Amino acid sequence: MRATLIHGPADIRLEDVPDPHVRRPTDAVVRVVASCVCGSDLWPYRGVRPTPDPRRIGHEFVGVVEEVGADVRRVREGQFVVAPFTISDGTCRHCRRGVHTSCEHVGWWGAPDHEGIPSDGGQGERVRVPLADGTLVATPEHPSPELLPHVLALSDVMGTGHHAARAAGVVPGSTVVVVGDGAVGLCGTIAARRLGAERVVVMSRHATRQDLARSFGATDVVAERGAEGVAAVRDLLDGTGADAVLECVGSKESMQQALDTARPGGTVGFVGVPAGGPELPVQQMFSTNVGVRGGIAPVRAYLPELLEDVWAGSIEPGWVFDLTLPLAEVAEAYRAMDERRAVKVMLRP
Amino acid sequence: MRATLIHGPADIRLEDVPDPHVRRPTDAVVRVVASCVCGSDLWPYRGVRPTPDPRRIGHEFVGVVEEVGADVRRVREGQFVVAPFTISDGTCRHCRRGVHTSCEHVGWWGAPDHEGIPSDGGQGERVRVPLADGTLVATPEHPSPELLPHVLALSDVMGTGHHAARAAGVVPGSTVVVVGDGAVGLCGTIAARRLGAERVVVMSRHATRQDLARSFGATDVVAERGAEGVAAVRDLLDGTGADAVLECVGSKESMQQALDTARPGGTVGFVGVPAGGPELPVQQMFSTNVGVRGGIAPVRAYLPELLEDVWAGSIEPGWVFDLTLPLAEVAEAYRAMDERRAVKVMLRP
Repeated sequence: MRATLIHGPADIRLEDVPDPHVRRPTDAVVRVVASCVCGSDLWPYRGVRPTPDPRRIGHEFVGVVEEVGADVRRVREGQFVVAPFTISDGTCRHCRRGVHTSCEHVGWWGAPDHEGIPSDGGQGERVRVPLADGTLVATPEHPSPELLPHVLALSDVMGTGHHAARAAGVVPGSTVVVVGDGAVGLCGTIAARRLGAERVVVMSRHATRQDLARSFGATDVVAERGAEGVAAVRDLLDGTGADAVLECVGSKESMQQALDTARPGGTVGFVGVPAGGPELPVQQMFSTNVGVRGGIAPVRAYLPELLEDVWAGSIEPGWVFDLTLPLAEVAEAYRAMDERRAVKVMLRP
Repeated sequence: MRATLIHGPADIRLEDVPDPHVRRPTDAVVRVVASCVCGSDLWPYRGVRPTPDPRRIGHEFVGVVEEVGADVRRVREGQFVVAPFTISDGTCRHCRRGVHTSCEHVGWWGAPDHEGIPSDGGQGERVRVPLADGTLVATPEHPSPELLPHVLALSDVMGTGHHAARAAGVVPGSTVVVVGDGAVGLCGTIAARRLGAERVVVMSRHATRQDLARSFGATDVVAERGAEGVAAVRDLLDGTGADAVLECVGSKESMQQALDTARPGGTVGFVGVPAGGPELPVQQMFSTNVGVRGGIAPVRAYLPELLEDVWAGSIEPGWVFDLTLPLAEVAEAYRAMDERRAVKVMLRP
């Protein structure tokens, strides 16, 4: 079969690799129907994170179960499934608390698992899925072509945006600022409205993303950044800032923007992979009582409720995909996202 | 009258100063019945924070109203009152949200107010109280000598410990770790139990403080620190760490201890004045989903509910006072706390 490997900065290749098969009785093999490129895939693509050796890449996919191991009980051959971006057993104490990303047997697509066996990446034709019962969520039936992008968005960005909103404590009536107009920020907008936010201010300088944010329920858009952006947000929100801020970028500047646009006593929910430095300004947090919560999103925990809403048509996160390419053009998919010609690219085998 | 001034490191003096009087119609004058020394008073005492000029000090006191300005409505002459450690108007948008420490007219005992008029410190015989209606809380009647220490503890440490527990999200059934066995940590123990925590592990190496923590409801005590302390906490708490950690010190080491003893997805509630550095490790927070919330405690917001419990005898935070001295010996009070001969010192004029 064919699968995507990253060899180094700006070096993405689709290559022939061995077909996956069930290696453990808890495995399944899934034929990928759609996958996509994540903003975090751009870190190694841009050389921000090193790639010492060529490796499989891609951690967002949906598809059809082709084979299951003898111990798999909750999914079966022929089912359509969503794979969240981490592998988890679903039974350990962390999974039971909904923190599947801290699972005792957590695994990462494209990386060796807890016993050193390499996992497949999601940007390929097939994937061996370890701990299939814990990891995969089956859809009620095979999705229509119209529904497919919305289901695919559940593998990462919709659950991640939802995690930002939950971590930030969004409740009915909340005022919200979203920092970041990428796919996660846009899904965070959906999530904030879904949780009842009254005002959702999206910080964005791109007209098409602004329009998409408004279609997702943003009530206001602020194009300014830095001190001007903070002033513009405060003008909109009673002079004080937001109850909840969703930090969906991961840079030092975006985190500072998030902290500065929260009202005293507010909360920043952060889901951007931190790439801008290891520090948060504790003195500012102390004097303003602005809290910071969040992290890598336990998407698996949120999949059932969000899938229900996607299936009912009440949320449509798949509109974040503004470009669809065949898997053969995966390198172009990375280029398009790197150059910000696309918000998010869907890949079809 | 006499009041305490700090002239520099280890230089505390009781001096004659002008009697306070009502300067604005919203002022009151309070005769101090008891005051105390705060852990944060030790920062300038130890030279960690500079003291460029001699200044009044002390921000925790209770007393009797002697005089009120023409616009004061909620307190009256002769009432016994508790003063929280910040001055606030009680009516602005931040106060209405319970973040009195971010009041638009916030003021600090011993410092110039928002119009540059100097305020008195709490470690004196009398205090002019700006914004008396917003700041002061009257007790149902004058407290008995037995009740006095518990009421005095409401001016700071009990409310601050409660803020740590609230910020950390303590709910019925929570597992809790308290980092810091000073007066705030000990009051945090009371607060955690009051909010329904099932397990409260206090990290302490001092036998008398351990005993006090147990009398306040601690279920376990861990004397180890660093990696050994983390391991000991995890052994007690299902191998994972605590749902909620109360950081009640403010050093870089104590914050790291707090982050390391929280379970994945847990929360650190921090109230220690940050003295150990401006950074929080965002990468660790991201990978573990451990949040950090808290800051300077809006004690005024919590005073009514905590005063009710003190009055009913259901909490007794005043046991943190293990030494009582006359105001004339205020310098010795600082020495005793600096040398850790006392947890907290009460001063009587």
